[in-house]
Amino acid sequence: MSRWEPNARGRLERAALELYSERGFEQTTVTEIAKRAGLTERTFFRHYADKREVLFAGSATLEELLVGALEGAPGSATPIAAVARALDAAAAAFEERRPHSQQRQKVISANAELRERELIKLASLSAALSAALRRRGVADPTASLAAEAGITVFKIGFERWIDESNQQSMSQIMRESFEQLKAVTAGN
Amino acid sequence: MSRWEPNARGRLERAALELYSERGFEQTTVTEIAKRAGLTERTFFRHYADKREVLFAGSATLEELLVGALEGAPGSATPIAAVARALDAAAAAFEERRPHSQQRQKVISANAELRERELIKLASLSAALSAALRRRGVADPTASLAAEAGITVFKIGFERWIDESNQQSMSQIMRESFEQLKAVTAGN
Repeated sequence: MSRWEPNARGRLERAALELYSERGFEQTTVTEIAKRAGLTERTFFRHYADKREVLFAGSATLEELLVGALEGAPGSATPIAAVARALDAAAAAFEERRPHSQQRQKVISANAELRERELIKLASLSAALSAALRRRGVADPTASLAAEAGITVFKIGFERWIDESNQQSMSQIMRESFEQLKAVTAGN
Repeated sequence: MSRWEPNARGRLERAALELYSERGFEQTTVTEIAKRAGLTERTFFRHYADKREVLFAGSATLEELLVGALEGAPGSATPIAAVARALDAAAAAFEERRPHSQQRQKVISANAELRERELIKLASLSAALSAALRRRGVADPTASLAAEAGITVFKIGFERWIDESNQQSMSQIMRESFEQLKAVTAGN
């Protein structure tokens, strides 16, 4: 009896984020998330393994997006230019979802376990980018350094982008952050 | 009845590393570690909270070393030069312990939970460096970018240094890796 629920996944995600923001991640149960979304627990578990996974279900899509964009970079692109292209694609996808990203980040920042899970996500994105660079013939340590530099820019740029006082687009911020990293490593 | 055991901490650490290498981290118990070290379980728990902590007990010392060296950099040093100085100090401390570092890294690489714990350690070192830079008056995002760049160099340089085929000192490798990161971010 697996009834199809229109946009169950999105409804569960919104309900979960609302509840995590209102009462905290630890204090929220799957039962409450399903209820708020007007769905059953059984439907919840058809879409997510647990309540933490709701916050990280987008990681695979983000990885595909980054790797796909990097792979699409012209053969003549330097490693860092290929990585910058990947970040541009991610920025374009995030741009519309700033309120969602802000809400998600607040939930993550408030919980040590979620902050750790987020670090692991970033490390795995870095590994995916460096593997994609190696497939383009970039040797190590250049591949790893370019990937790590990209993830540093993504992480720090992302924090600036979701800041309430920020008026810039994510893609502008990512570009600026790349320039700043370049200036910093050059010793300025 | 808290009898003092000469160098109990070091003996427990060596016994633990041996056992983790021989039979794997999961398969080793605290009872076995204490027995191999010729000490009691009670002595183990006077020194370490659990068997994972044996592998990460050096983190606080490493953080103090990095932050202390950064704080000792001349006021005129650029942020990245101050971070490089911190890494130089760490390299000098690690130099003598290459076999130990190699053995520890193998244990960590073989276990997902330990790899995650190691990522968290590196993130917390980066946070400590960027806080130390801010105390020197370096603004963000420069402070965070310089700290993250330093930790990237440390992580990737460390992996190269413990590689069996490597003949260079850690401090040479760290300097080279800084130069490579500079070249990569400059778009070479």
